[in-house]
Amino acid sequence: MSDVIQTIAQEIADCLAQVSPAEVGAAVELLNSAPRVFVSGAGRSALGIRGFGMRLMHLGVTTHVVGETTTPGIASGDLLVIGSGSGRTASLLSSAQKAKSLGAKVLLVTIDPASPIGELADATIRIPAPSPKASGGGAQQVTIQPMGSLFEQSLFLLLDGLIVMLMQKRGIGSDEMFTRHANME
Amino acid sequence: MSDVIQTIAQEIADCLAQVSPAEVGAAVELLNSAPRVFVSGAGRSALGIRGFGMRLMHLGVTTHVVGETTTPGIASGDLLVIGSGSGRTASLLSSAQKAKSLGAKVLLVTIDPASPIGELADATIRIPAPSPKASGGGAQQVTIQPMGSLFEQSLFLLLDGLIVMLMQKRGIGSDEMFTRHANME
Amino acid sequence: MSDVIQTIAQEIADCLAQVSPAEVGAAVELLNSAPRVFVSGAGRSALGIRGFGMRLMHLGVTTHVVGETTTPGIASGDLLVIGSGSGRTASLLSSAQKAKSLGAKVLLVTIDPASPIGELADATIRIPAPSPKASGGGAQQVTIQPMGSLFEQSLFLLLDGLIVMLMQKRGIGSDEMFTRHANME
Amino acid sequence: MSDVIQTIAQEIADCLAQVSPAEVGAAVELLNSAPRVFVSGAGRSALGIRGFGMRLMHLGVTTHVVGETTTPGIASGDLLVIGSGSGRTASLLSSAQKAKSLGAKVLLVTIDPASPIGELADATIRIPAPSPKASGGGAQQVTIQPMGSLFEQSLFLLLDGLIVMLMQKRGIGSDEMFTRHANME
Repeated sequence: MSDVIQTIAQEIADCLAQVSPAEVGAAVELLNSAPRVFVSGAGRSALGIRGFGMRLMHLGVTTHVVGETTTPGIASGDLLVIGSGSGRTASLLSSAQKAKSLGAKVLLVTIDPASPIGELADATIRIPAPSPKASGGGAQQVTIQPMGSLFEQSLFLLLDGLIVMLMQKRGIGSDEMFTRHANME
Repeated sequence: MSDVIQTIAQEIADCLAQVSPAEVGAAVELLNSAPRVFVSGAGRSALGIRGFGMRLMHLGVTTHVVGETTTPGIASGDLLVIGSGSGRTASLLSSAQKAKSLGAKVLLVTIDPASPIGELADATIRIPAPSPKASGGGAQQVTIQPMGSLFEQSLFLLLDGLIVMLMQKRGIGSDEMFTRHANME
Repeated sequence: MSDVIQTIAQEIADCLAQVSPAEVGAAVELLNSAPRVFVSGAGRSALGIRGFGMRLMHLGVTTHVVGETTTPGIASGDLLVIGSGSGRTASLLSSAQKAKSLGAKVLLVTIDPASPIGELADATIRIPAPSPKASGGGAQQVTIQPMGSLFEQSLFLLLDGLIVMLMQKRGIGSDEMFTRHANME
Repeated sequence: MSDVIQTIAQEIADCLAQVSPAEVGAAVELLNSAPRVFVSGAGRSALGIRGFGMRLMHLGVTTHVVGETTTPGIASGDLLVIGSGSGRTASLLSSAQKAKSLGAKVLLVTIDPASPIGELADATIRIPAPSPKASGGGAQQVTIQPMGSLFEQSLFLLLDGLIVMLMQKRGIGSDEMFTRHANME
């Protein structure tokens, strides 16, 4: 049974090994220069996105999750980070269009950079996980898992990798991040 | 059937008519001087609390809902607003104790100001709605409604009343508030 | 200062007094015969909608909030209840269209029954609160409050009124509802 | 920069390789026989927990996330799954105690099986990730990541592994799971 877990870990490692270092580097630059970051995802892609938003807050970045109670309007110069396997989820496409129309920038992490959200994004990171909805292009990692699980897991880990890169770039350690941690739960 | 709705509206009006103007005034002062406001509630009391948090953000106040993704730690000088009928919900009591220990202030809206959270709060507003859990003291409004509904409704309206008072105090209108409204949903 | 609160209570009472008993009665019938109920709203309209969803669960109705983690797909025969002042929120319109296409029914509580969601709904309840986005028709209640507050408050109370009517219709009391209450928070 | 991402993938693979197959097997048995499953976690541990809850629903299991709107009370025979690195988060300990007192079973995924929640759990799965709060015992995987990230990632993947095992055990495929997917977002 533990073969299943090791297979999943290997699938993710293989999938992430194919991610472009240049795309990752460009994303870190965008994140590092944004005055405010908004993050958004749907379904299980929202999980990694929320985890990323929490860690950005721990880093001292002004961060908001789209759809939470006290999230204000996005404005010119802000950065919207979207996680979407298909790159065509209707509500996320609508958010991306709104963000662009107001002068904000959009970073998309996706299986399909040629998707509608990918087309208008300022930067994309491609994760080569399988998706029934992606328009394809390029080989995709094989998986034993259902639905979009491999994308959602790879998204979570990739975004956490961006956090470590931002920590290194800014010289911020885990102890400093703990000082911003929620303290009333 | 519409008798039911008019009866509910009357119950709330009668309940709110018994709220102390002095307690309301003290709460407005606390809110008006807080650098950051944290809001917290459980169950259906969380509904009015979240609605209040959103409107405070619209007013330009830095506001966080306890438990949401990017909510940071509370610190000295901040204000924690709790809505709790019983005033003794374990998780909220724990939050109030933590807030006080760090030098933050606590405002409680409750049926029972003599409750554990009421005892340590800097200010309370009493809503005389019925509760099976409150230790009582003072007459309570009769209701045809189940569980804590009358408290939860009165809490929602009372908090929205505080918003109007803050608008008047700061000279902020609805149009200005719209400029801070979430714009990607 | 307490004049503000009493004014708000009066605004709501006046607004709800104009709600059609026939529309309310038809809504209760729809709710009473639905095998499963899905509820959905955006922004502060989501507050009353969620409170309604929780009370339906307390009544023993299989109920899901659109967007929460374990909410399944809607199917033929199910009922979707939407709260939307404008009746034209993009994500809610999309949900309503999907629900109808699958054979589910739609109940809309709105300021504007002539809106796109109103046009395709099986039943509507009109709340005559003011809205900058509604296409109008019929006089609207005056308010001292910002944005959509009067609609959101009236929605909350109206839905709680439907709960009392369902309790009466099914002979269910508050004590029985408490037995289904969440017990791990 | 992509070294960071590969390092993280390796950390997780190494960490998960140390998980006990016997503990995993016992957890699958508990999950397979539970009439209803409740899932609960705090902070970033809530992410994997929610993703697990959604997939259980896709498998046809009646599943509720503690704290969401329509989650009912837990009862005798139900299973509560908790993800907690420290095994001593106050609100989760309180939930576990309540669940046990009502005759429900508790499964804990944790860094520290000797923790208070571990002590009362019917079954535990140990993930040997580092934690500042764990009382230790046993070597722990080294990490370049901040705070509890390695635990949270391993938790996410481990729980997704349990899903694949349940799919195999019940003979359910990805296509069948898609039929239960939320369809109004």
